[in-house]
Amino acid sequence: MYDNRDKYSDKKDKNTCVFGIRAVIEAVNAGKELEKVYVQKGLQGELFFELQKTLKNAGLNYQPVPGEKINKIAGYRNHQGVVAILSSITYQDIEKIIPTVFEEGKVPLVLVLDRITDVRNFGAIARTCECSGVDAIVIPSRGAAQINSDAIKTSAGALHKVPVCRSDNLKTTLDFLHGSGLQIVACSEQTKKMYYEIDLTLPTALIFGSEEDGISGEYLKRADETIAIPILGTIESLNVSVAAGIILYETIRQRK
Amino acid sequence: MYDNRDKYSDKKDKNTCVFGIRAVIEAVNAGKELEKVYVQKGLQGELFFELQKTLKNAGLNYQPVPGEKINKIAGYRNHQGVVAILSSITYQDIEKIIPTVFEEGKVPLVLVLDRITDVRNFGAIARTCECSGVDAIVIPSRGAAQINSDAIKTSAGALHKVPVCRSDNLKTTLDFLHGSGLQIVACSEQTKKMYYEIDLTLPTALIFGSEEDGISGEYLKRADETIAIPILGTIESLNVSVAAGIILYETIRQRK
Repeated sequence: MYDNRDKYSDKKDKNTCVFGIRAVIEAVNAGKELEKVYVQKGLQGELFFELQKTLKNAGLNYQPVPGEKINKIAGYRNHQGVVAILSSITYQDIEKIIPTVFEEGKVPLVLVLDRITDVRNFGAIARTCECSGVDAIVIPSRGAAQINSDAIKTSAGALHKVPVCRSDNLKTTLDFLHGSGLQIVACSEQTKKMYYEIDLTLPTALIFGSEEDGISGEYLKRADETIAIPILGTIESLNVSVAAGIILYETIRQRK
Repeated sequence: MYDNRDKYSDKKDKNTCVFGIRAVIEAVNAGKELEKVYVQKGLQGELFFELQKTLKNAGLNYQPVPGEKINKIAGYRNHQGVVAILSSITYQDIEKIIPTVFEEGKVPLVLVLDRITDVRNFGAIARTCECSGVDAIVIPSRGAAQINSDAIKTSAGALHKVPVCRSDNLKTTLDFLHGSGLQIVACSEQTKKMYYEIDLTLPTALIFGSEEDGISGEYLKRADETIAIPILGTIESLNVSVAAGIILYETIRQRK
């Protein structure tokens, strides 16, 4: 239930977008990484079906949105109802990272973010991850903060340094992490166990959720431990980037 | 040297300002708390000298600024070269708070902020202070973040709950805190001592400084201890609100 209030902004840098069905197909075929694909609701036609097939083959989703949203992003460009936003970073594969970390003789520390959509909070978390030596940040393919120039700026460049991994299915990813020997630790207020009462020297994946409704039940269910940060005042929760900093640095303190 | 990059915004809520020399004099005489007084550079005249005298008697400063700045805030209002911004909160007196905390049998925990001017960082710090039971936040009368609606929103209302004290002279305030039995702890990267290596169960005042040049030498000199947060990555520092959260919660952990 940590803070995650503002939704991402609609402002896009026009240099980081691809407009039009054919252009998006070509971008995918050229191996460009796409952050989001927006498709005007109700779009039909042979070329669109080709786009659907291309995206599916590349393991990418698209988001149906009202025409006005596409117009707002594309301005006067000929968008044919389709706009893709290019990724500012190169996503990495969590299934390759974990074995490498173990091979290097290190104890993995992974952060899993469930619907942290605020760009500044996400950027601040990434900055703390870089400073605290986190091995990877896992975000869902849908419902994550957009990694735009604001996120990168707030991260002080950390988003170019800490591996960020997108997951099509966080449940499968949590099962993979658990199966790899990491304890899954959910950070939530729904417990009396405090964050300094568990052993964080073990290989660990920490999950943080959105302020609106915390960590989804399906991920909480997969947690080996649930921990809270004590709240001594009357405000119910900390900002999520502060909460992440506190628990990441407790991990560093225990591992010193 | 923690993050403190953006300067406060120039957007003012017109309901929280007082325009014109006579109006500002009346506001001061009516006991209204002023956040800032901006005076157009080179202003002269009898009424202005009366304003100077009134401000001085009330222990308030003013800031000489170019006329355009006043125009930007006042719009078409008749400002006579003077605009005052009303405080959104009621400032409190650190010299009254500390004895009360001791009388209540509690161990004081105070945060001193040296030139933290970013409104969102300041708000986030206040939120963490409320959650961690900090007794008071001390800021300088000049060179602090403006406590505007953005700061209050980012603080999740904490700025209406945690006592905030303005100090005309932080050196004197640090001497007062030290004389009252608080250890003065500077949080800076200029040390090898880690934040978890000192005893934070003692009465403590923590100082945080600006990213640009850290804590001023004159305050560092007054510190009983200087502590750092370990940085394992390549980015040189944490965001100041995250850094404050880490050290405040280490205090909570030690005092549990």
